[in-house]
Formats: sequence, C-alpha cells, structure tokens
Amino acid sequence: VNACILTIGDELLQGNTVNTNSSWIGRTLIKYDIIVKKIITIGDDIESIIIEMRYILNSGYDYIFVTGGLGPTHDDITKNAFVKLFNDKLIFNQSYYNKLKSKYEKNLIKMPSINRSQAMYPEKANIIPNNFGSALGMQYKDKNSNIFVMPGVPEEMKNMINDYILPELINKPLSDNVITIKTSGIMESKLAEKVNKIIIKYSNSCKFAFLPSYYGVSFRINRIDHNINIQDVKDEFYKAMEPYSFGINDDTLENYIANKLITQKHTIALAESCTGGNIAKRLSSIPGSSKYFLGGIVAYSNILKTKLLHVNLETLNKFGAVSKQVALEMARGIRENTKADIGISTTGISGPDSLGKKPIGLVYIALVSSNKTIVKKYNFNFGRNAHRELTTTATLNIIRLSDLF
Amino acid sequence: VNACILTIGDELLQGNTVNTNSSWIGRTLIKYDIIVKKIITIGDDIESIIIEMRYILNSGYDYIFVTGGLGPTHDDITKNAFVKLFNDKLIFNQSYYNKLKSKYEKNLIKMPSINRSQAMYPEKANIIPNNFGSALGMQYKDKNSNIFVMPGVPEEMKNMINDYILPELINKPLSDNVITIKTSGIMESKLAEKVNKIIIKYSNSCKFAFLPSYYGVSFRINRIDHNINIQDVKDEFYKAMEPYSFGINDDTLENYIANKLITQKHTIALAESCTGGNIAKRLSSIPGSSKYFLGGIVAYSNILKTKLLHVNLETLNKFGAVSKQVALEMARGIRENTKADIGISTTGISGPDSLGKKPIGLVYIALVSSNKTIVKKYNFNFGRNAHRELTTTATLNIIRLSDLF
Repeated sequence: VNACILTIGDELLQGNTVNTNSSWIGRTLIKYDIIVKKIITIGDDIESIIIEMRYILNSGYDYIFVTGGLGPTHDDITKNAFVKLFNDKLIFNQSYYNKLKSKYEKNLIKMPSINRSQAMYPEKANIIPNNFGSALGMQYKDKNSNIFVMPGVPEEMKNMINDYILPELINKPLSDNVITIKTSGIMESKLAEKVNKIIIKYSNSCKFAFLPSYYGVSFRINRIDHNINIQDVKDEFYKAMEPYSFGINDDTLENYIANKLITQKHTIALAESCTGGNIAKRLSSIPGSSKYFLGGIVAYSNILKTKLLHVNLETLNKFGAVSKQVALEMARGIRENTKADIGISTTGISGPDSLGKKPIGLVYIALVSSNKTIVKKYNFNFGRNAHRELTTTATLNIIRLSDLF
Repeated sequence: VNACILTIGDELLQGNTVNTNSSWIGRTLIKYDIIVKKIITIGDDIESIIIEMRYILNSGYDYIFVTGGLGPTHDDITKNAFVKLFNDKLIFNQSYYNKLKSKYEKNLIKMPSINRSQAMYPEKANIIPNNFGSALGMQYKDKNSNIFVMPGVPEEMKNMINDYILPELINKPLSDNVITIKTSGIMESKLAEKVNKIIIKYSNSCKFAFLPSYYGVSFRINRIDHNINIQDVKDEFYKAMEPYSFGINDDTLENYIANKLITQKHTIALAESCTGGNIAKRLSSIPGSSKYFLGGIVAYSNILKTKLLHVNLETLNKFGAVSKQVALEMARGIRENTKADIGISTTGISGPDSLGKKPIGLVYIALVSSNKTIVKKYNFNFGRNAHRELTTTATLNIIRLSDLF
C-alpha cells in the first residue's frame, strides 16, 4: 500500500517554512504499512495544482495526502483547484459560518470578513472536521485513490489524520512488516560495518536502510519474506548494535531518559553553555517532564558560570571556559544549586570563531551524580548549528548510558 | 530563471529526517532571482531516481539541485543512478583516496573500508569540493539545464552552494525583483485586511504572497512590471504594516534584537518556564550573542522558581505558577540574579494537561528593566509544540517592541 504527499505553498518553495508536515505524515503512515513513495511541493497556483494532481492520480497511489492552501487569504487556492479538477462547485454553509462567527465572538474578536470563504465547501467532497482551526478538510475518491486535503497548519493536519483519517477513513491495523531500531553514539559507516554480516545473512528476506540524522542513526528493517519472524531479526540486529541501540520505532532519547529517570526516581538539572538551552528544550518537550527535569542554567556568559554555577574564577582563568575542569565544576554547581540527583553540563566552541588555541568543534560534556563523575570530550566540527545539535544528542546519550560508565 | 530541487532519501519519505535542505536552497536561490518551482522527494532507489530525473530534465528547468544518497553505505546510490542516466562511468581517484585516508589517520581513526567508494568518481562530471565531509559533489550539464548533485548533510550541501556553486558555477548578481517584509505579532488574516487596499493598487505591477510560520508572517513582493520602483512599493507596505513589520528578507527577530541590544549596550537574561529553553536556544543561535545574552534559568519546576529566581512561595500559592504575579517575580529575579539590564520571563500551560481551572494555551510573558515593567497575557491553544514556539516568538517580539510600550 503506497502513498504520495502533495504539499502546497510558496512559503515551502521559498523556504520561509520548513516542511515538517510531510515528514510527520511519512512517519505516521509507515506504522500502518502505508509507504510514502514520493513527496511533491509546489506553489500556490491553481493550474500547477491541477497539472500535478492529474499526474499523481495517473500514477495510481492508494492514498494521496494534500496539505496547504486552505486558509482565508487570496493566495489560498487549493479548494478552488480541487473544485476545478473534479468538476465540483462551492456551496455556502450557513451553519458552519455561524459556528465560526460565534467562535471569534467568544474570544471577543470580530471575525475578519475574508474568513467567510472558510464556510464555502465543495459539494462532492466529504468534510473532515477541524478541531483546532477554521479550515475544513476534504476527502475525495478518484478511481482507486483516496484523497485527503488538509490545512498546512501542523496541529490541524495532525489532528485530522489522528482523529478522523486513520481511525475512520483508512481504518487499517498497525503493521508488523517494518521495525526501525534507534541508535545513538555511533556514526553511520561504523554501524554499517558492525552489522554487515547480518545484513548479508538476511538479504533475501528483508530490506534494510540506514537513516542518519542529528538525533542518531536509525536502522529500518522491512520484511519482504513473510515466513520469517521480524521480531527475531530485530532482536539479532539490536543485540549486535548494543550499546548504541536504545529503542525502536517512535522511541527517542528523550523518552528513554524520561522512563529511566521516572523508574529510578531521579531528578536532573542542566548547566548549558554552548548548547544554549537546546538540551533543556529537548528534555522539556516530553509532556510530564517536570517530574524529573527540574530545569537548569544557561550559563552563556562566563559571569553566569561563576555567579550562578559557582565555577571557580581561577579554574576559568587557568584552563579556559572550554575545558574538562570547567565542565566538571559546572555540573557540580548545578547539582548543588538545585539538589538534583544528576547534574549535567556542556561547554564547547560552536564557532564560527575559535577560542584562542582551542579548535572550533571542541566540546566537553560532564555528568555528576552521588556516585559518578564522567567527562567526555568530542570534536563536532560541522558548523555552528550541527555543533549544538550533535552536542545535545551526545549529552542525552551520556545520560542514557550513565549506568554503564 | 527557475529551478527544481530533488531530494533523495528514504529517511525523508519516512520522516526520520525533516527536509531542511530544500527550504534552505529555496531561501538562498530567491535572492538571486532563481525561483524554485517544485521540490520532489523520492527514496534511495536507482530506477526511481532515473525516472524522476528524466521527467525533470524534460520540464526544462534552468537549474536542478539534487541532494542525498552520496554516503558510503549500500543504500547510497545517487552516484550510480547518475552514471546510468548519463551513460557515464566511475573511476577510482587514488589521490583523493589518500587524502581521505590521511584525514582519518589525523584523528587517530581507522577509515572504514566502505569509505573507499567515496573516491570513485564519474568521469563526465565536474567535481564540487566538500570542505566538511568525504562525499564529493558533481556538476552535470544536459540540454539547457545545469545540474548540481550534493550530499544530504546540511553543512556540506550549504558549503558547496555558498562557496562554489553560487560564486563560480552560477555567478549571478543579487536580485532586485523580490523583497520579503518580515512581520511579527499579527496573524495572517488581520495583516491581509490591513494592506488590502495597497494590494489592489499594485495588483497589475506586482505579485504578493503571505507566508505564515511560527516565526511570524512574511509578506513577499514580486515585481512583474519593471517600470515601478520596488523599494517604493516595499516602503509603502512596510509603513502600513508598522509596528508589526521589523525587517526584510533574511532579517530575523533574533538579528533585530542582537542589533538593538548591541547598539543600546544592553544585556538580557531569561527566566523560562513553559518555553523550557527555547528562547535561550533562539537567542544564542546568533554567532556573537554572548555580547548581550548573558544566559538564563530554565525554571521548569516550582522549586527552581523559588530557589534560583527567588519567586515568593506565597505568590506561587496564592496566584499559581501561571500568573501575572509569578511572571513578574521571575523576570525581576533573573534580572537581579544576573545584573542584566533586561529580565524576561515566560510561564504558561503548554498542555496536554491543563492546570486547575486555568486553560491550556494560557501564557504570561514579563519584561522588566530599570524603567519598564511589562506583562502580556496570551492564549496559544494549538498543541504543545505550537504553544512553545508561539510563546517564544511572542517573547522575542516583546523584546523588539519594548521601547514602544
């Protein structure tokens, strides 16, 4: 069962918005054995949408997911494109208009007059409700393709897929043909070397893919021979990938850490320098993270390192802010300050400028608990943003592995 | 002049990686009047790449940017696809192989043997050097299309475009047909209402687009009649959009704040609760931000609010953590603690759970300086992640506008 995603919007072509919708859809569908074969992005132009949709419809996808261009402004023309494509027409829905109007009035806002267009709905389409916004979704069927047209606002689109499209309109069981092993702390080529023999062993019964990102390397197993047990294959790879393998499918380092800390009844606090709040952001992205994540200090300046984290001025002057010694004092400082069980710190050089004789990319990560003191040194010299992201992932991985060190 | 982007990788289709490459390329090219008309993503499959490339080549784009699939593992097959597409062949480059090997040896790592493939290079292609990684880029020409094939690693791709493709291989001047006005603090439909008359006035000489995102609404002006002065048009819209308009093109709230604080010689520190480090992350994403951004405290738990920010326990108990009063005490606390000129705080309910009688989406943002005390209340009820992102943007916007309040 395959799918195509068509995302519409000049803001995507011109890079004002990153296309997170298509990756979310791909990630969600694969769990139901629906494989996205192609993602296409085009601009807000009726003719382009029609041409592209005709081409997509001729390619015979089972499911076609369309997002974007359902808003109220003049460049939101997706509804008109589909009306033209399917020889449909728009009809004014008085009751939906009243509902929209009263929603605005409840918030003491006068509804902008252009929002009237949100109550115009194509006659032949099924309505997909929108729990978060004003633009309704549409379902069309054409030959053997099932087409879902949704707004580009991520929360609205996700809600439509999770609450209506997957349970009601698709209604397919979760798949047992695909498993993804999540790893952290090893680069793609090293991981490939590690499992090369097992890949060859299963090469006739499974397809494999290495999926690298700033969050680690994922390894996807796709069963093609239904006589083999995919759980056994997964277990064999998982074991060979230890201690880098930490979970499967939707598991993340953040989730792993959440479960671990909740089980151990441990709390954690951060002293971030070069990561500038990114680790805090990732830890606190988990709902309920306040149970184990107390918070932390972003000691971006040296002043805060001494003032709030009580890093010794002598240590700073003697070894420099980016040093093993300062990393340790930062981790100790945040632990004492917050009474957290585990104190974590990062200090490094993200660039673009280097720091004295120390190279861009250098970073120290420290972890301090009642019975452990760990400092790790890395060099991630791939640009400022990559440095911050890779340091964040390396830190989360140190927290995950801290019982092993 | 138009372009098409082809991004290759199962990790993009299956959503393990978000496609940030294509948005970066789109954003970069538009400055040179090269308009991306289409972005296509397909998987790591030789036949799919060849079919897709033939279709793209027939569509007559001036430039075709291809990323991904140049790594060393078995599923990196882009090079082989292009060799087949252009009846080319791979040749082993001994000197590049030696260079790669010595690079690994310098870092005291044995080069994985599969990296040998990185020294295999197509005979007919021009080499595009890679300053950050081992995979070389390729340039092909076909009919009137200029094709650039690059690795999927963002830093490597960006460096190839910035250092080789734009200055040497394309060598086009910066455009004066497109200007984007950046706004913050107003929603798309309200902004559209505000400038509707000016849009009508220029409807024959320009094309316009509203580009909404979590970072604000951008407004793109595209000149089609060369007799008008695009700067004048921009100025007219910019004025009508005040005080929401804050910059053009690549300007960001973070850059605006950087310039403002550096000029005013002011420092800033943060006390973040619901945003969990996201504001710190965005402020510290600017190289050199340590000049004005001292850092801050992520007071995710109430314990840190009282202990490190000195929020009064009575205030917390009486008004709750998400209240005007606690927001103010947090901003005052971080300002006093760090001696920053400006203290900023956020406290809100990102969800999924609400807090007592207070609704999900509620948030208070406070700013305290020597002569100002501002608290703003918002409700961003569009899901947890949107709440954190919109609160972050609203906070940066309050910093931007603080002189006006």
